Amino acid sequence: MPTKKELLQRPIQHIDIKQHNVVALVDAMKDMAYSSRDTGRAADIYEMMLRDTDCGVILCLAGSLISAGLQKIFVDLIRNNMVDAVVSTGANIVDQDFFEALGFNHYVAGDEYKYGAGDADLRELMIDRIYDTFIDEEELRICDETTHQITNSLEPRPYSSREFIREMGAYLSKNGKTPQAGGRDSIVLAAYEKNVPIFCPAFSDCSAGFGLVAHQHARQGKPHVSIDSAKDFYEITQLKIANPTTGLLMIGGGVPKNFAQDIVVAADILGVDASMHKYAIQITVADARDGALSGSTLKEASSWGKVDLTYEQMVFSEATIALPLIAGYAFHKNAQAARKGKSWTQILDQVPVTA
Amino acid sequence: MPTKKELLQRPIQHIDIKQHNVVALVDAMKDMAYSSRDTGRAADIYEMMLRDTDCGVILCLAGSLISAGLQKIFVDLIRNNMVDAVVSTGANIVDQDFFEALGFNHYVAGDEYKYGAGDADLRELMIDRIYDTFIDEEELRICDETTHQITNSLEPRPYSSREFIREMGAYLSKNGKTPQAGGRDSIVLAAYEKNVPIFCPAFSDCSAGFGLVAHQHARQGKPHVSIDSAKDFYEITQLKIANPTTGLLMIGGGVPKNFAQDIVVAADILGVDASMHKYAIQITVADARDGALSGSTLKEASSWGKVDLTYEQMVFSEATIALPLIAGYAFHKNAQAARKGKSWTQILDQVPVTA
Amino acid sequence: MPTKKELLQRPIQHIDIKQHNVVALVDAMKDMAYSSRDTGRAADIYEMMLRDTDCGVILCLAGSLISAGLQKIFVDLIRNNMVDAVVSTGANIVDQDFFEALGFNHYVAGDEYKYGAGDADLRELMIDRIYDTFIDEEELRICDETTHQITNSLEPRPYSSREFIREMGAYLSKNGKTPQAGGRDSIVLAAYEKNVPIFCPAFSDCSAGFGLVAHQHARQGKPHVSIDSAKDFYEITQLKIANPTTGLLMIGGGVPKNFAQDIVVAADILGVDASMHKYAIQITVADARDGALSGSTLKEASSWGKVDLTYEQMVFSEATIALPLIAGYAFHKNAQAARKGKSWTQILDQVPVTA
Amino acid sequence: MPTKKELLQRPIQHIDIKQHNVVALVDAMKDMAYSSRDTGRAADIYEMMLRDTDCGVILCLAGSLISAGLQKIFVDLIRNNMVDAVVSTGANIVDQDFFEALGFNHYVAGDEYKYGAGDADLRELMIDRIYDTFIDEEELRICDETTHQITNSLEPRPYSSREFIREMGAYLSKNGKTPQAGGRDSIVLAAYEKNVPIFCPAFSDCSAGFGLVAHQHARQGKPHVSIDSAKDFYEITQLKIANPTTGLLMIGGGVPKNFAQDIVVAADILGVDASMHKYAIQITVADARDGALSGSTLKEASSWGKVDLTYEQMVFSEATIALPLIAGYAFHKNAQAARKGKSWTQILDQVPVTA
Repeated sequence: MPTKKELLQRPIQHIDIKQHNVVALVDAMKDMAYSSRDTGRAADIYEMMLRDTDCGVILCLAGSLISAGLQKIFVDLIRNNMVDAVVSTGANIVDQDFFEALGFNHYVAGDEYKYGAGDADLRELMIDRIYDTFIDEEELRICDETTHQITNSLEPRPYSSREFIREMGAYLSKNGKTPQAGGRDSIVLAAYEKNVPIFCPAFSDCSAGFGLVAHQHARQGKPHVSIDSAKDFYEITQLKIANPTTGLLMIGGGVPKNFAQDIVVAADILGVDASMHKYAIQITVADARDGALSGSTLKEASSWGKVDLTYEQMVFSEATIALPLIAGYAFHKNAQAARKGKSWTQILDQVPVTA
Repeated sequence: MPTKKELLQRPIQHIDIKQHNVVALVDAMKDMAYSSRDTGRAADIYEMMLRDTDCGVILCLAGSLISAGLQKIFVDLIRNNMVDAVVSTGANIVDQDFFEALGFNHYVAGDEYKYGAGDADLRELMIDRIYDTFIDEEELRICDETTHQITNSLEPRPYSSREFIREMGAYLSKNGKTPQAGGRDSIVLAAYEKNVPIFCPAFSDCSAGFGLVAHQHARQGKPHVSIDSAKDFYEITQLKIANPTTGLLMIGGGVPKNFAQDIVVAADILGVDASMHKYAIQITVADARDGALSGSTLKEASSWGKVDLTYEQMVFSEATIALPLIAGYAFHKNAQAARKGKSWTQILDQVPVTA
Repeated sequence: MPTKKELLQRPIQHIDIKQHNVVALVDAMKDMAYSSRDTGRAADIYEMMLRDTDCGVILCLAGSLISAGLQKIFVDLIRNNMVDAVVSTGANIVDQDFFEALGFNHYVAGDEYKYGAGDADLRELMIDRIYDTFIDEEELRICDETTHQITNSLEPRPYSSREFIREMGAYLSKNGKTPQAGGRDSIVLAAYEKNVPIFCPAFSDCSAGFGLVAHQHARQGKPHVSIDSAKDFYEITQLKIANPTTGLLMIGGGVPKNFAQDIVVAADILGVDASMHKYAIQITVADARDGALSGSTLKEASSWGKVDLTYEQMVFSEATIALPLIAGYAFHKNAQAARKGKSWTQILDQVPVTA
Repeated sequence: MPTKKELLQRPIQHIDIKQHNVVALVDAMKDMAYSSRDTGRAADIYEMMLRDTDCGVILCLAGSLISAGLQKIFVDLIRNNMVDAVVSTGANIVDQDFFEALGFNHYVAGDEYKYGAGDADLRELMIDRIYDTFIDEEELRICDETTHQITNSLEPRPYSSREFIREMGAYLSKNGKTPQAGGRDSIVLAAYEKNVPIFCPAFSDCSAGFGLVAHQHARQGKPHVSIDSAKDFYEITQLKIANPTTGLLMIGGGVPKNFAQDIVVAADILGVDASMHKYAIQITVADARDGALSGSTLKEASSWGKVDLTYEQMVFSEATIALPLIAGYAFHKNAQAARKGKSWTQILDQVPVTA
């Protein structure tokens, strides 16, 4: 059996789309068939979405994307005004992005571990596995503990996940976890600095959940921090109302996809005749045929009045291949040239806070 | 174009496993290969889980399962002490189960609608589509409005989704939405009556979310109801601590799978040396190869210390085919004979409530 | 490392649809959603196809189906006049069905072998693996050698695979490999006795190919047996011309699906205005989205003029689960009551043989 | 309903890997996860395979690849000595490559046709559909007719598909279907000129099958051309014996994958102790979990003694995305620098021809 040190040797490296001009390659794909043509059309739609400066771009993240080497893409999109809000699973934002922001890494696992042959050994070594990737569980416990500290530092009241994640950004900023201080850039930090709100509608379902449980347990009935998921929904609906033209760039499906699509209906319920999402792209390997939302087509969402049919594209591909092409295409065509940051956090700071 | 009435003619009928003795069929599958053998082994594990009367059975639901005709299976499992807690997406519990409890139906859609060819027409008619199934959006709005009323009737404070869903059960009970009063049985009602807690860790991501947003909007800064997702996590962890032997019956993946698996770690963080889930079954069509949790194998979960390797089985099948076989097998072998209801809600009623 | 004997202990058992009346179960599935409803509709179409006594039913087999425990279903369909011709990959017919007819078995492999962890050990033990199933390679070599002997016994000329497989049936009949002689029933034997032609359009791509290569090698330029794949296509086209109403029951895709669909066009090329296949069912897990034929929908085939749109159904399910339901449904509804064997081999015996 | 002319307006364009240097992009993928890392490793293995000048590279093609815009990649691989033999489904070689060589095109279909909504209209217009691609059926009939003419021009005897396809190459060369004569390059032509053998083990299952059926029908018992699939297997086995070090570059699975893997066993049966394939790459979207060969892992093939475990890589991706990266990587690293054409056809010309 190899040692823990031997197994955790080769860190995942995040791809830098700025280094790879894929414009000609993606242009060539547009006249082919199947996923390449879909990728080409998705790249066109993302470009359109960005050139439409009225459009607020909502990035949705499901699946283990940061651990897979896609972190820098999302950081670059935020820093270049190519994303105005993020809706994500908790794992991507806390267990993976914030975790790396604290200085930790994900590691390449050998092919022989992919299908579970070594899992009993890994358990003994406290190495967690995500398909072909390793994590040091002891480092993950430090991440849990950090969210616990942040929770304890807050005034007891209900918070949206967005407010809580903003505090995580402030923590990184104050504690020298920034490129300027020799640390690394991260989604949580970039979003904090650029006033890009991040929502995790199932926020307790991640490393932060462990911190929150420990916090509430210690308080035993005394006033404590809570995470109000209804407030998340209310806040993001306010953004739709304030900025009616919207587009979705979705990686994976799940709760983030559903949550972001639903804000059209929620605005309607608040008495605002909101337009459907004007642009929508989803990259996924999920299958439509079990009826689950993750693989449901964007045409199906149009029957619900959530997504407009004109500029929508599903790309059936694993994201580590398709996203560098789509995001890289828009970046190298400089689609973001005329965009300014929407600083949506500032709109949300005016939503009343209630105990 | 057909009329709305013509399109909404043939209601989805829920399969009744009590009517179909599949024991011999499933026994025959055990000596075959691929998904049939996996189905056979999953049925064996579910039987074992139930005969182990110490075992608390947690049912996890993701995907559109109630709209697909599986509601009665879950109701029967609850009423026969074959499930002790439920973790679900909001859509299954509110938009689909509670919706049908209010007297509404899902409808069979013609094959020609499956791939989106009629979605523009459906939009006009206010018919929502889930793959091959239709919903009357006007009826869904009544469901949203009902959750709004329930929210307004509550004392303003943070609630776990479990507490809120219990109020939904009380609403059904009080308002004659029961078989005794001529209504139909439902998961929310059965769980209410049997003291089976239901958790929706992303609770605002459904019809109830619309009711909550409307409520919070109307309150404009005044005290209001909030949904504390950390409290959900805290509560379910208490169950793991109170009842250390646990088994998971998972349909689909997503947030419910992750949330239920995580309670082992959460108990550990509260200082309790919790055992891994002793039994675990997952029925899914998701693919392991994109690294997303929904399709990740249960062996992978064992590297995280969440699931024991001895009695775990993935069944790669669409649930409407595999679940009637697995649940029906255990039922007709009378695996539940010695089980009594664990009434887990009563444990949770002792968790302190904090404003 | 376990011994070979320890690993080859538990033979695959073929499911017997005659023992499982699934009519009520499948009827219940018709009002559900997703794959269950598709399975229900496929069962209806198979029933219709059989009650239409004019209809010649062509069974197409791709994937490792016999090794998976489905052999007896196909034998029963042939013996009960529910199949009039078979188009298959060579592996199903020779390496698996004829192999079992010779007295050998496939074996259940432990779950831990599924993903390849033990393949190096298996290689050493001469055990071949098909996903979760084992084969004794030494027994497979005996099967190769038997086809070699059969080849050597034939008059040197081009044969259709259909003619060759008929000789394999004769071999079984003459050599006591029949239930009457204490052996087991098989597809090759049942088809021989019922005059049901079997075509393997890629016949050298299996155990028989090894026998043929050995034969041709030994002949070194002298007259020898050859396999004329054009003759296969010619023969099956004659069947379409002689019996215009046809239906397809397809398990998997690949060459068998394409070959059987193509006979409509081939008849047209011979100057006969052939009707499209009137009924078509395909059970598959393949995906339409890579454009490959295996997962292409039957609607797509209708654009080619091969399959009529009225009675076609794709069932996206692994076959070991779906086929017992579909075939068992038709059998227990006695849809075959009025059918007589079409004895299509007799039509083909009139096709001229040319050196 | 649009006219045929309106629908067939935008020809599929074949991607030119020579124009896209993807080396840095693929290098970046090697330190990521999931399919990107697999793609990176597959590119490394293809590079290794080419730098090993002893290695005979066998390209296997299944799925509709030429119609999808991948034709030029295969032509470039052949012309640059990066492929020494081809094993393919008939459709890729005859209906698609030879078809384009005759001057015809495949066409981009609008997204609204993908799921079959317009298939009845297409049928009327004689437009055939492959998922998102159109073909003019009248042009396809000219292709069928051309193979009929070629068949009629041959001396009556059994041919391997390899011999027949070589005659198709000669036809293109003689009839001005070459770049020099103002035509276009094609796989069939390039292989003819470079002495690269092409095998279609299920040769009658394509447009050539129609020509052969028409030929045999017209001959009515007189001597005619036949296609000896056993001879195909014998010939390719001779190549393995003459050139023991081999590598497989497989796009899709099906018959080509099985056939190419089997030659190791066939050589053994001829008394030659052949080594396993030293290198193997497969790009596929197929699933391992139905036990079918198309998605079976290369580890599984190692249990059969067909593929060595050291340098094998599955890439779970649709080929139009992954192949330009893998083939382009090897090309731009100039891995082919020291390779000379193996001209394998010349070995096969010495295999005795028998009537």
